[in-house]
Amino acid sequence: MSAIDDLSDELARLPGIGRKTALRLAFHLLKAPQDDARRLARAIVTMRERVRPCDVCGNLTEASPCPICANPRRDVSVVCVVEEASDIMAIERTGEYRGMYHVLGGRLSPLDGIGPSELNVEPLVRRAGGGEVREVVLATNPSVEGEATAAYLGRLLGPLGVRVTRIARGLPVGGDLEYADGVTIAEALSNRREL
Amino acid sequence: MSAIDDLSDELARLPGIGRKTALRLAFHLLKAPQDDARRLARAIVTMRERVRPCDVCGNLTEASPCPICANPRRDVSVVCVVEEASDIMAIERTGEYRGMYHVLGGRLSPLDGIGPSELNVEPLVRRAGGGEVREVVLATNPSVEGEATAAYLGRLLGPLGVRVTRIARGLPVGGDLEYADGVTIAEALSNRREL
Repeated sequence: MSAIDDLSDELARLPGIGRKTALRLAFHLLKAPQDDARRLARAIVTMRERVRPCDVCGNLTEASPCPICANPRRDVSVVCVVEEASDIMAIERTGEYRGMYHVLGGRLSPLDGIGPSELNVEPLVRRAGGGEVREVVLATNPSVEGEATAAYLGRLLGPLGVRVTRIARGLPVGGDLEYADGVTIAEALSNRREL
Repeated sequence: MSAIDDLSDELARLPGIGRKTALRLAFHLLKAPQDDARRLARAIVTMRERVRPCDVCGNLTEASPCPICANPRRDVSVVCVVEEASDIMAIERTGEYRGMYHVLGGRLSPLDGIGPSELNVEPLVRRAGGGEVREVVLATNPSVEGEATAAYLGRLLGPLGVRVTRIARGLPVGGDLEYADGVTIAEALSNRREL
């Protein structure tokens, strides 16, 4: 049954898909209508052919500039810096942000050999110093490396005269103090605000 | 970003893949080497083109009869009845079984309108009554419907003069009495054997 093995090998290369799940998915695709299987295969190829990074912000898009950069109703004076294009989708889903984005393409990680020159940092400095931008919101992840990246960018962008802010850390909405880790609780306490 | 949405829609149709996982997988396929994505797409199409049920046992195979039915070193006098072709792989992995198989293509489920005529039952009766078969091992799942299917097949095959057996139920190896459900423990007790 080598065609089934081939497919489950390929599926098992995906993140979070183990060998058992891969085999289960392969069997599902074998029993599903032929059209479903073909549509999935075609969607993979089509996406790879059409989607590429936006020349302005690095967002993944089928047209460059991307729909966000091309939208005249968005606020060009605020730029939100994220690690990955997928983070843009997470923020857009909130519907609370009307500014622009800038995708770094990762975070600083000296141990993995990822320094500023491996990231999309220089174009960010150019954008921030171009005169149009008033505020840069650093929305890298609240991880050790994300914080280090934010700190680095803060030092780099500060002298340009733009406002540099960092997204807040604290307890997740709907979370529970009892189950939160100590570091998060400490952050939530030290970032407390007047009601 | 409709090509990404299209792909994540298709991925979300797979069993056990939710919307968030689908999006994560789509982004992974976008960042993975182009060849990886193409290979996955091709593996899906190839599998659908090549794999079909074995004419003898219903196993999914690229050649009919399947490698198990075509293997002269397997014992044709024992036929193991399973619900799905994927169950064959699970049993083959144990390396403990040297007989043949028969895939029902499901289990009896009156509520879903699945009766004996919807399953691969008649060919099983023909095989079992053909003279070559001495024993039929009923390896349908230990679920309510799997048990009902086994009971039905037992009544059907008994008069043919073949030995009809049912796989054992009991505590899973490596399991823990403390976490086992009561029905399983009861089965394990009543199926106890002399040491």
